[in-house]
Amino acid sequence: MEHSAVAVFAVSGVLAARGKRIDLFGALVLALVTAFGGGTARDLLLGDLPVAWIRDATLLLTATATAVVGFFMVPVVEVPGRLLVFADACGLALVTIIGTEKALGLGAAPTIAITLGVVTGVAGGILRDVLVGEIPLVFRRDTNLYATAALCGAAVFVALESWLPGREVSAPAGAAVILGLRLAAIRWKIVLPELR
Amino acid sequence: MEHSAVAVFAVSGVLAARGKRIDLFGALVLALVTAFGGGTARDLLLGDLPVAWIRDATLLLTATATAVVGFFMVPVVEVPGRLLVFADACGLALVTIIGTEKALGLGAAPTIAITLGVVTGVAGGILRDVLVGEIPLVFRRDTNLYATAALCGAAVFVALESWLPGREVSAPAGAAVILGLRLAAIRWKIVLPELR
Amino acid sequence: MEHSAVAVFAVSGVLAARGKRIDLFGALVLALVTAFGGGTARDLLLGDLPVAWIRDATLLLTATATAVVGFFMVPVVEVPGRLLVFADACGLALVTIIGTEKALGLGAAPTIAITLGVVTGVAGGILRDVLVGEIPLVFRRDTNLYATAALCGAAVFVALESWLPGREVSAPAGAAVILGLRLAAIRWKIVLPELR
Repeated sequence: MEHSAVAVFAVSGVLAARGKRIDLFGALVLALVTAFGGGTARDLLLGDLPVAWIRDATLLLTATATAVVGFFMVPVVEVPGRLLVFADACGLALVTIIGTEKALGLGAAPTIAITLGVVTGVAGGILRDVLVGEIPLVFRRDTNLYATAALCGAAVFVALESWLPGREVSAPAGAAVILGLRLAAIRWKIVLPELR
Repeated sequence: MEHSAVAVFAVSGVLAARGKRIDLFGALVLALVTAFGGGTARDLLLGDLPVAWIRDATLLLTATATAVVGFFMVPVVEVPGRLLVFADACGLALVTIIGTEKALGLGAAPTIAITLGVVTGVAGGILRDVLVGEIPLVFRRDTNLYATAALCGAAVFVALESWLPGREVSAPAGAAVILGLRLAAIRWKIVLPELR
Repeated sequence: MEHSAVAVFAVSGVLAARGKRIDLFGALVLALVTAFGGGTARDLLLGDLPVAWIRDATLLLTATATAVVGFFMVPVVEVPGRLLVFADACGLALVTIIGTEKALGLGAAPTIAITLGVVTGVAGGILRDVLVGEIPLVFRRDTNLYATAALCGAAVFVALESWLPGREVSAPAGAAVILGLRLAAIRWKIVLPELR
């Protein structure tokens, strides 16, 4: 499960390199930063070190292999944009719930666990955008609900965990809220207010 | 005290979102990054983990509430620029001294403690500016003394602490130096040399 | 040895401030970030805290002194570009091998140790470029092999260490590979493929 989220985020990192005269290494770094940025931020903030991808070297392998394959396939294969958006929404749902769960498990307060879940879900994409010199996509109104979807799903997960601990119900429910809200927001162009 | 500094910095984060098509969530992240960036950097570098705002969830509450209120008030209420600058200078003074003191307390050498004090004071603003795609304000000549004021005040604090330990004298004196230098630099346009 | 690498990287940080209306303090921060960014990232990821430059205050002294001297000399003294490139390549070689070795010593798997060696070598420059609003130099095709040279040298070092532990052979060999590849790539304009 975690490996598939890592792969999806790695592809989104490679895609950010398009049109910017970035070489294979740059694309690889963008892939790794997008894939591991969120989990790394969470582990650093919690002090759970070394961070996850340093302890489990297979994650690095998955991200690197995906990035290299993606690098050479991007110019050749036409992947439908909708598929990418759907895969990314699944990755967001998965990674946010994993992050929230980990923070709860390490004793974080509910509001902190929700925040760290959102950090896990969105920090990689923020770093990716900063590295290519753009204002992060998740900050922008026209992205539709993204972090907000993660926030709602993480909150549902934490609430259900306190009622029915054990993750069998809470984890799928939280992930479904994220996926559903994200896709609905894209479909019906739901946006947050913007600062005038 | 710390909560008021958090609130001031959170407002400066929200204000950075103006005119950039950033939505409520983006403004909230900018507020949190500005408010907690410096302390987070300090705690990470020192290895004092989990970082402060993870241990004390009330800080997150203060920053979030301030950011949300600020988001909806910014377009409506006209706050005088001078008040913002004064509040920010107070925040800088407070946060720098708290950061220096914490580093000293964890056994850092004097030069390191001063450096970490400055990091605590300015890193949040640097991150805020990077996230909206601008060269950090504190690097720029026309900002007048900002980090330099923090540096001098932190040095005064460390020097006084070695003479008269106990913070009763050293902390207010260090903070006064920062506030005084910062306001004097704005008033009389004192600047550092620029790289030609 | 480490101090000379710190000095070389600090100069590259100061040079990044040219033409951007950045003052002495901004140039100093850029110098410190470039000099310590890589080692700080490595120590954070590994959880070896406080980070190196906090434990050994002489490193901060070296970087600060170099940055201040460099700041006032840059507009006056004409340093040949080739010398800067050569010094930077030496710094990259040294810092990458030190980083790889440290990660191995803390029990990281070979692929992770190589990755952390590259992080140690290039993260400072990436942060420097992000802080002045540019796409990192190491991501760009026209930089010729940079991180790739670091990667190959770190891999050679790790491979030789497993055969002939003790660093007498492996460390100079790994560093020589980095230096040789980097200089050869510049001389013969060797580049990685770019994403079309």
